[in-house]
Amino acid sequence: MEGKRQPAGDPQDSTVPKAVVTRLSLYLRELEHLENNGHATTSSSQLGSVLGFTDAQVRKDLAYFGQFGYPGIGYRTAELVSAIRGILGTNQVWNAAMVGAGNLGRALLGYKGFQRRGFKIAAVFDVENAKVGSEIEGIRIQHLDNLPKVAREHKIRLGLIAVPGAAAQNVADQLVSAGIQGILNFAPVTINLPDTVNMVSVDLAIELEQLSFAVVNRLRTD
Amino acid sequence: MEGKRQPAGDPQDSTVPKAVVTRLSLYLRELEHLENNGHATTSSSQLGSVLGFTDAQVRKDLAYFGQFGYPGIGYRTAELVSAIRGILGTNQVWNAAMVGAGNLGRALLGYKGFQRRGFKIAAVFDVENAKVGSEIEGIRIQHLDNLPKVAREHKIRLGLIAVPGAAAQNVADQLVSAGIQGILNFAPVTINLPDTVNMVSVDLAIELEQLSFAVVNRLRTD
Repeated sequence: MEGKRQPAGDPQDSTVPKAVVTRLSLYLRELEHLENNGHATTSSSQLGSVLGFTDAQVRKDLAYFGQFGYPGIGYRTAELVSAIRGILGTNQVWNAAMVGAGNLGRALLGYKGFQRRGFKIAAVFDVENAKVGSEIEGIRIQHLDNLPKVAREHKIRLGLIAVPGAAAQNVADQLVSAGIQGILNFAPVTINLPDTVNMVSVDLAIELEQLSFAVVNRLRTD
Repeated sequence: MEGKRQPAGDPQDSTVPKAVVTRLSLYLRELEHLENNGHATTSSSQLGSVLGFTDAQVRKDLAYFGQFGYPGIGYRTAELVSAIRGILGTNQVWNAAMVGAGNLGRALLGYKGFQRRGFKIAAVFDVENAKVGSEIEGIRIQHLDNLPKVAREHKIRLGLIAVPGAAAQNVADQLVSAGIQGILNFAPVTINLPDTVNMVSVDLAIELEQLSFAVVNRLRTD
């Protein structure tokens, strides 16, 4: 059936909706789970049903990136895991720097999910002298002044911003100067970046607002 | 101009895309900022430009929920703040329970953004006897067994799950039994809930994957 496979789609095509990329992460997580449980193959309906999506949705999402199914077989689990990792760019290890060693920084450092998915927090920075030199999860906190040197030495490409809002733009500017290509921002402020740097922002209060919107609207319709 | 205003739209209309509701949160944050800085009125282009959206996008998003602008004036900042809070359901205080008093739980408790936006973490639960009885941010950690009683007494309607993945489904079931209406889940697992309960999941590894996807695709097209 190999001959039936089409070349991978054009993942840099900016018409791939953000929601599709998010679902790709969900498919990957579920596929890894299936693979670990000995399922050599799976189907769009099996994959969809666990996540609450239709099989048509699963097929349509994957079709943005290529043709992955085999007639009469479905998806080969390990192969699809590998393909999605390639699409998401997590078939490689990304070294990341975290700036901010407060409670959130500590929580992120203790979060096992990052490492498991190919993200390695290789260095932690703060500006408070009381924190610099102490260790979290075996990583010594360094002063932010060391960022350019450490980023070069450890080939750090991603930055995590876990500082208060007022400090976030300045930290972002320093990450950009140090050659970071992508930023995961937890500070609840708007940050301006050059077009050459990508950012994903996680604003926890916004997530809670999305939840209250859902609850309020369900209650209104009940 | 009052007469020109149309009745608010139908926010329970399930055709409102999730992305629109997310942008509503961003507009609200920016409007509060404008209000605090003495701007009594604003425009779709002012609101959009700070956030990187076109004025047409801003108008289209708001049109899902009603007609808020005044010809020759634009938006009355305080009025639009109040309207969006009403739509999102944050014109009231939501009492929330947090389950899990580890690093992530501590970080969430220390997060000032929740309270500022109408979410009050009224109780914290854990199952580890070593943690029960100690305090974080002035809130005493209680044993999870107390959840039903405390949820009733404090009229708790939202739950935050900050426990390891393996414990998350059981915690969710207990939150549902205690009458919680919405769950903000930080555990990186799929949780099954009855249709009567809403959930928003924050999977930090997925956010990082979205970032690596963006970086990889930019690099591919550079």
